[in-house]
Amino acid sequence: MSQFWSPLVHTLTPYVPGEQPKVNNLIKLNTNENPYPPSPNVLAEIKAQTGEQLKRYPDPNSDVLKQTIAQYHQLNSNQVFVGNGSDEVLAHAFQALLKHDKPLLFPDITYSFYPVYCGLYQIDYETIPLTDAFEINIPDYHQNSGGIIFPNPNAPTGRLLALDAIETLLQQHPNKVVLIDEAYIDFGGDFNTQSAVTLIKKYPNVLVVQTLSKSRSLAGIRVGFAMGNPNLIEALERVKNSFNSYPLDRLAIYGAKAAFEDEAYFQKTCQKIIQTRQNLTNTLQELGFQIIPSAANFLFVSHPNHPAEQLAHALREQAIIVRYFNKPRINQYLRISIGTNTENNQLCQVLQQVIEH
Amino acid sequence: MSQFWSPLVHTLTPYVPGEQPKVNNLIKLNTNENPYPPSPNVLAEIKAQTGEQLKRYPDPNSDVLKQTIAQYHQLNSNQVFVGNGSDEVLAHAFQALLKHDKPLLFPDITYSFYPVYCGLYQIDYETIPLTDAFEINIPDYHQNSGGIIFPNPNAPTGRLLALDAIETLLQQHPNKVVLIDEAYIDFGGDFNTQSAVTLIKKYPNVLVVQTLSKSRSLAGIRVGFAMGNPNLIEALERVKNSFNSYPLDRLAIYGAKAAFEDEAYFQKTCQKIIQTRQNLTNTLQELGFQIIPSAANFLFVSHPNHPAEQLAHALREQAIIVRYFNKPRINQYLRISIGTNTENNQLCQVLQQVIEH
Repeated sequence: MSQFWSPLVHTLTPYVPGEQPKVNNLIKLNTNENPYPPSPNVLAEIKAQTGEQLKRYPDPNSDVLKQTIAQYHQLNSNQVFVGNGSDEVLAHAFQALLKHDKPLLFPDITYSFYPVYCGLYQIDYETIPLTDAFEINIPDYHQNSGGIIFPNPNAPTGRLLALDAIETLLQQHPNKVVLIDEAYIDFGGDFNTQSAVTLIKKYPNVLVVQTLSKSRSLAGIRVGFAMGNPNLIEALERVKNSFNSYPLDRLAIYGAKAAFEDEAYFQKTCQKIIQTRQNLTNTLQELGFQIIPSAANFLFVSHPNHPAEQLAHALREQAIIVRYFNKPRINQYLRISIGTNTENNQLCQVLQQVIEH
Repeated sequence: MSQFWSPLVHTLTPYVPGEQPKVNNLIKLNTNENPYPPSPNVLAEIKAQTGEQLKRYPDPNSDVLKQTIAQYHQLNSNQVFVGNGSDEVLAHAFQALLKHDKPLLFPDITYSFYPVYCGLYQIDYETIPLTDAFEINIPDYHQNSGGIIFPNPNAPTGRLLALDAIETLLQQHPNKVVLIDEAYIDFGGDFNTQSAVTLIKKYPNVLVVQTLSKSRSLAGIRVGFAMGNPNLIEALERVKNSFNSYPLDRLAIYGAKAAFEDEAYFQKTCQKIIQTRQNLTNTLQELGFQIIPSAANFLFVSHPNHPAEQLAHALREQAIIVRYFNKPRINQYLRISIGTNTENNQLCQVLQQVIEH
């Protein structure tokens, strides 16, 4: 508390990200990073851009990256917005598109940054409970609101909502923005039938946000993007250009571009994760875990006989970290990022010891 | 205009940064970048960090960088805040520390992003005219306000305000934040007697913002920082952690750290710019230009017989770009970034041709 603080600051409850430990030798399955390295082409391109030109400002509009993403998703450049990680993109979207007189709607169990953004921008919101099976039930959103946002697949549950349900939602709410936060969509297995990107041409009210931090193994360079009608993109640009002219540095712009240009590596990595997710699911089920069906690069699991917090603690003692949320409805669950097969096996060995002990 | 936009978006007048041309072969003296490349140690460190570890999120707190900056300026880590360029740091400061019931004060001629931030965060402000000689006159700020901000040296004038005047201001306004935006302070020639960093231990109300984009030749990697009492820093951290957990990517964190660790290169570069600024000043004076005394890496100049806009146009035709602001009181001035001696000579040759023609 301080006389120097703007009144708003006293009211904030900041987001707490998953731990980024500073020691090595940990098996890190707590923040849904990709267990595989970035494409070698990306690393080569970043090194190639690391020269005298870093004395110059980057392109404030990141045009080469927008063009690359647009081409990749068969859109125009003015349907693409880029930012310093999808968290920044989401922040701008909350301020630019989701702040209205009526409350914003999102699930009670979802990305826990959403209520934090609402605090920062003083946006009224209402949470809509997931079903007992942790599913989003579209009719529950059929009420007066200023906008709707949820991740698909949802986090931390991993559950995918079918595209026809999203299309119904867009049709039922033509006068408000529906933001689909697709941080994990590339792990669903069939982008073309699962991503709301395919709905952009038809619906002016859908904004799709994606990131390079998960499926493209680039959490370390901070690039996220939004796709939608040029009218929605313009609102984001106006806020961005009132906040920071140069959110993406030169290395991020060109590294991200190279990531989209190495489709083979991307596909191979995603397929490996989908495969190991299945292996891990099988093994955990054999250990008695109940597992929410996941279309993401993590599993949301609980064990009928072992409290989740104790399991997280036992794993931590063996240098394996997973995410535990001490929150209503989900405090008996662990969110476990999909690691390599070796990492997953070590996880299962420790869990087996705890459970059979 | 759109039903989907938050009401605020309709009211925004975004900032327009200086042109970042996409063609080469231009002499670019329009955005105050450093004409010399980053330290070779910085480039080597960025390349060394460009590996598998980019799959991981960076440290959300950038601790190694904060520690490096703190040590460099003889502060504690909790007196340092880092962000994605000083524009982001300033944005957070406007929201966290400069929004109060009473209006914010800043000069009428100054960094033109300030009123844009006020628009974004709906902060009342009042501009205080510089003197006819483009000086900040401290008694003019002796009025009811919610805070004070100005660059020192000021931009686009280049004028330095003496440190004892700033100390007087801090003493006269103990209950409000005084933000000194020191983007160009390293070009003043004597940091210890010019920078407000030396006042931080004595005054809890001073916040000093600096950047690596100018004096450290790193506009391309986007790192800025603020220094002040831990209480002010905490306000910035609360806003940052409600906006984006990971504003600095791994390459920016380690590249910036390496920049602070190569003091010899930094000193050499700054001294070269100070020297060429003097050479350029002499030559332009011989051509009849009037020059505001500059402590920055740019000159603010006017010519009694040649309209500034025409000169900017003539330079552009010869592939030299400088900054022209079509604004009251300064529309007869050009802001010219200090280039290399070769670039400055080419500039002067073209100006000579125009003036003697």
